[in-house]
Amino acid sequence: MKNLNPQSANKVVAFRWVKSPQKGLLVLNQLLLPHQEKWITCRTHAQVADCIRHMAVRGAPAIGCVAAYGLVLAAWEKKFTDAKVLVAHLYASAQTLFSTRPTAINLYWALERMKNAIKEIRTKASNDRGKIKEIREYLEAEANEIYDQDLAGNHKMGELGSELLSAHSVVLTHCNTGSLATSGWGTALGVIRTAYRRGRIQKVLVDETRPYLQGARLTAWELAQDKIPYELITDNMAAHLMKTEKIDAVLVGSDRIASNGDVANKIGTYGLAVLAHFHRIPFYVVAPTSTVDLNIRSGSQIPIEERSRKEVTHIRNLPIAPLDSHARHPAFDVTPHGLVTAIVTEKGVVRPPTLETIQALFNIKS
Amino acid sequence: MKNLNPQSANKVVAFRWVKSPQKGLLVLNQLLLPHQEKWITCRTHAQVADCIRHMAVRGAPAIGCVAAYGLVLAAWEKKFTDAKVLVAHLYASAQTLFSTRPTAINLYWALERMKNAIKEIRTKASNDRGKIKEIREYLEAEANEIYDQDLAGNHKMGELGSELLSAHSVVLTHCNTGSLATSGWGTALGVIRTAYRRGRIQKVLVDETRPYLQGARLTAWELAQDKIPYELITDNMAAHLMKTEKIDAVLVGSDRIASNGDVANKIGTYGLAVLAHFHRIPFYVVAPTSTVDLNIRSGSQIPIEERSRKEVTHIRNLPIAPLDSHARHPAFDVTPHGLVTAIVTEKGVVRPPTLETIQALFNIKS
Repeated sequence: MKNLNPQSANKVVAFRWVKSPQKGLLVLNQLLLPHQEKWITCRTHAQVADCIRHMAVRGAPAIGCVAAYGLVLAAWEKKFTDAKVLVAHLYASAQTLFSTRPTAINLYWALERMKNAIKEIRTKASNDRGKIKEIREYLEAEANEIYDQDLAGNHKMGELGSELLSAHSVVLTHCNTGSLATSGWGTALGVIRTAYRRGRIQKVLVDETRPYLQGARLTAWELAQDKIPYELITDNMAAHLMKTEKIDAVLVGSDRIASNGDVANKIGTYGLAVLAHFHRIPFYVVAPTSTVDLNIRSGSQIPIEERSRKEVTHIRNLPIAPLDSHARHPAFDVTPHGLVTAIVTEKGVVRPPTLETIQALFNIKS
Repeated sequence: MKNLNPQSANKVVAFRWVKSPQKGLLVLNQLLLPHQEKWITCRTHAQVADCIRHMAVRGAPAIGCVAAYGLVLAAWEKKFTDAKVLVAHLYASAQTLFSTRPTAINLYWALERMKNAIKEIRTKASNDRGKIKEIREYLEAEANEIYDQDLAGNHKMGELGSELLSAHSVVLTHCNTGSLATSGWGTALGVIRTAYRRGRIQKVLVDETRPYLQGARLTAWELAQDKIPYELITDNMAAHLMKTEKIDAVLVGSDRIASNGDVANKIGTYGLAVLAHFHRIPFYVVAPTSTVDLNIRSGSQIPIEERSRKEVTHIRNLPIAPLDSHARHPAFDVTPHGLVTAIVTEKGVVRPPTLETIQALFNIKS
């Protein structure tokens, strides 16, 4: 397989779809950032699933987009002659992609949207060859639309969220919610980007976000590229700085939001929310509406992914604890909606988040 | 200089005083634990100061003891013929040892006690040679007494603290407060040790304690050697586990306690205290009375050491953030006494800690 070179990028991106001559998805291997920029070339849905599972690509909106493109690859990875065989393969591939990570709902949402696209095709072709061509084209268009909408949504959230900040704010953020976690601008980090351009950000405090160090490795890297002033801190410094320095807001992303406004996000988010509450600092969640799971009533129904203990006891391959250590690794936590000041979505700001305000956002009559 | 080999230890120790044939202090290089056990042989007070400054030895009570022995070495490191010259050298050496780290008061306390010992000597000798011998002997005896008292105090705190725990408790601890941080048993970890032997500990949750990873590297190692069940967690998991699992108490040590009961301790302690308060979990501080600084009225007067940003951006020599990252490194924080359920000392349990209850502990009439 020939390796594709990404076009020289003038901004950070997590992945690139290659339309021709051969369909491919380039995934920036985030496990090696910030010290190496290596791209993984995916030609099959299984390769995309591996990238998601091993966190070469991560961030709820990004893995939704990447999974959608993974399904496009599934349509091209074999020589199909029977349209029914193709559709069966697509459903099986969607299941493989879906099973990679349990917490982020965007993955499910994007794959459901792709599956619905298949169902919606009103075929004009009279033979299987024509039908297969139509399905492939329709899926690629749908994945592109998911991507485009996510990017547009990011910019919209940037505008809405920056309105919540005063001039020269000091904000604290957790994990990575920037271009690397989305289709290009960011959720919480997108708000920070937009707000910085409007003179509303003095400084960003970046939680390093153990154990994967997404803050240290990815958010610091993105902020440095955008020349936005930041200070990297260990997660356990947040409380001390909330008490002793001016912090105007905490901004985080989300992997799944329950219909009552409870927010699942990267481990450590809940603790930050409690600390922000104690110090009377606004706590904002920034996430597209594709993150809201209307099928669950509260955060207690959100599955929390338990990842390998080795990810806690080692940094890369360097052991940082006794080799036979018992360790825990819940990768996410749930913040009750009562600790969330507002949720910023591309459709509007939900403040405070409750069953009623979220239903109103979706125009659901209770 | 000949390297001394420590006697094969049947338990963990941070340092060993070698009385003869040549005075020496063996310091276990905690920076290399748990994967390498290497001992540093100190023959001069400057070598001891280096060990403290670079954290080869750390933990407030341990650095108090080690500094006292460092001053004994100062008395032996040159061939003195004039007792006045020796005393001047001791005072200068005490200043060097004191200046290594600013937050822990035990360092100051131990060195003041050693300096007072010099003043108290009622010399019987008629010449300088005899006086020098007396000073050397008196200082070594005083350092041994500091060590012995710290060890006895640890065991006493273990007894008093374990009374606060019910059978089969799950406790959470931060940093390292065990044998490696003291003269041998531990403060918070000493309580855990004693309580475990009395059937009161089901499991210990160990904060890894970024950036130095004292929890992952040292506390996990000590607990493993004692076969006490533990689970290692990243600091940012504590809140999630407080919410979703049974945690009966948080136990931490201290580097300095103000006269009103405000507690300085390893960065991350204050955040834990807020989280424990929110989840109604008792928050216990375990520290000898040598940690109490009666000269300061509140925690705001405690100097907070700022260490190198490289200790945040690198783990050993592995960079974990962009190489030019801005980073912060306050090494300690202050927990207001209102968030502390009780302070366990070797003289008794102060509950709740206030100016009045602490004065009562020291038999001070207000």
